[in-house]
Amino acid sequence: MNPVLVEVTRGGQVESAHRGAVAIVDAVGKRVAVLGDADAAVFPRSAFKALQALPLVESGAADAFGVGDEELALACASHSGEPMHTERVETWLARIDCVESDLACGPHLPLHEPTAHAMLRAGDRPCRIHNNCSGKHTGFLTVARHLRVSVEGYERPDHPVQVLVRDAVAAMCALNPRSMPVGIDGCAAPNYAIPLGGLAQGMAKLGDPSSLTPSRAAAAKRLTAAWKAHPLLVSGTGRACADLIMAAKGRTVVKTGAEGVFTAVLPERGWGVAVKIDDGATRAAETVMAKVLTLLGSADEGTPEITKHLNPPIRNWRADIVGERRPTEALARLPA
Amino acid sequence: MNPVLVEVTRGGQVESAHRGAVAIVDAVGKRVAVLGDADAAVFPRSAFKALQALPLVESGAADAFGVGDEELALACASHSGEPMHTERVETWLARIDCVESDLACGPHLPLHEPTAHAMLRAGDRPCRIHNNCSGKHTGFLTVARHLRVSVEGYERPDHPVQVLVRDAVAAMCALNPRSMPVGIDGCAAPNYAIPLGGLAQGMAKLGDPSSLTPSRAAAAKRLTAAWKAHPLLVSGTGRACADLIMAAKGRTVVKTGAEGVFTAVLPERGWGVAVKIDDGATRAAETVMAKVLTLLGSADEGTPEITKHLNPPIRNWRADIVGERRPTEALARLPA
Repeated sequence: MNPVLVEVTRGGQVESAHRGAVAIVDAVGKRVAVLGDADAAVFPRSAFKALQALPLVESGAADAFGVGDEELALACASHSGEPMHTERVETWLARIDCVESDLACGPHLPLHEPTAHAMLRAGDRPCRIHNNCSGKHTGFLTVARHLRVSVEGYERPDHPVQVLVRDAVAAMCALNPRSMPVGIDGCAAPNYAIPLGGLAQGMAKLGDPSSLTPSRAAAAKRLTAAWKAHPLLVSGTGRACADLIMAAKGRTVVKTGAEGVFTAVLPERGWGVAVKIDDGATRAAETVMAKVLTLLGSADEGTPEITKHLNPPIRNWRADIVGERRPTEALARLPA
Repeated sequence: MNPVLVEVTRGGQVESAHRGAVAIVDAVGKRVAVLGDADAAVFPRSAFKALQALPLVESGAADAFGVGDEELALACASHSGEPMHTERVETWLARIDCVESDLACGPHLPLHEPTAHAMLRAGDRPCRIHNNCSGKHTGFLTVARHLRVSVEGYERPDHPVQVLVRDAVAAMCALNPRSMPVGIDGCAAPNYAIPLGGLAQGMAKLGDPSSLTPSRAAAAKRLTAAWKAHPLLVSGTGRACADLIMAAKGRTVVKTGAEGVFTAVLPERGWGVAVKIDDGATRAAETVMAKVLTLLGSADEGTPEITKHLNPPIRNWRADIVGERRPTEALARLPA
């Protein structure tokens, strides 16, 4: 039974509560600190995109197609569909001789509300490039081009691109690639159920690649640097990932995933963090990650970027404060 | 510790799970069936709007201002802001000599996405009438007009209108009106923390008003009839409340509330139902209520209206089925 990590209050009463687990693990799999069940398998969803992007660099595809740091950040991103994201994905697609319809992810309105509203006002409809995963998919297509295999079906679990991705993910998380249950993500790419502790270990290896082969270590370093350098490309204006990466001032990078997952890489410590909220609530995962960053010394409590996610007020539709979201004592006791 | 009532799967694995409690209680407070903690206090949020509307009828305000069944349904509604809702609220406001700015609820875009998108395309901005609670607030204003008290501040807990509402809610839920913790709802109206079993009892009395004073019994009957007759006005196109009320074919009315609350009134049985999901997830509350209705014989399993909420597929952005939402065995064992 995982502990309650986050509470949501109204009028001083707890209205809702979120249980979950946190694993902080180093690159060799040593558990630095754990709250709840770190052995339960979770789908990382978008929170392990940097692991999924390893073959893009390691295979030589990124170099062959001149993929720069901004594009690598987009390969690791759940972007908000702002022009800064979609214009770069479009340019990258053209450079690998692909078009929007080659992307296997479905369309959805940009997560960035002003951009979405501007599109609606202009009578525009979202395309696959607006999908928050379009950078990851363009990375997959780049690998397919480099391998000189068909881009059609690149999202299928048995396609050469996805086999490379699966094997890289499994090796990073110290798992047998054939033992990971497969699920299909919201963007139609394969996702793998991974024990929370293994996911944290995989993230740790991105920041401490000393146990990796030289080519994989170089890929891990380059991806982590791109992720750190471009917090807005990895997420978007006002998003938790951008805020927390900027608050950490280079000490930590973080990545959200659907259904209450959040990961972090702490290169200075050589640790990885993985969070899963049992019920899948994003709001709770954001509060947990903000708290973990302050506990681990990656960010200072009390800054606007941290408070916004750690302990935000709950407001009604006329903006009065009617409650708050807050981490519990259980979370504050996380040894670090 | 409340049991897991709903699971969300991906690739055959449970990805997220929701705990919660269910109370089925009769009008005198006898517990017909309970799962989890029925004594824990919950904010009913919008799920007890029919209780909040009792003074509108009981005070004579509805009759004095010619408030019909469609408007009573809107007083009990969390509406989707479709033209069928906003046009009726606007007409009602004019009849009581009030204007949009008299409403204390803040503006938000209609919950009905096509309506919201059409507004954005037309360059329109939402006003307070689009707030999903604008019918409830217009009901409050109608009571204020009838009492010949100031409409200004009608949303404050100590305003005569809210004192009437609080006392009616407390009496229906068999509580001391002064012992109910107060919270402020998303629409700026007071909300009260009520034990789940008491909330279920309050709903039961709406369907079995035999223990109520004649004027309150008449108000309960009239509100329940209006609610039953106008499922689309109480919610909106495609919404869970409308679907479940229509699936129940007059045997049951239901009402959703924010943060995972759902209530039902079963007049034929004389029972009330209250559901609270611990983590506040609406998706889980909808699955629980759909299951409860089938267990209580109010609706048939297998119809599209029930399946859509009981056991919907989880789809990715290109509409492939990648998982499902489903009730657990714990819920299926609910004695009924």
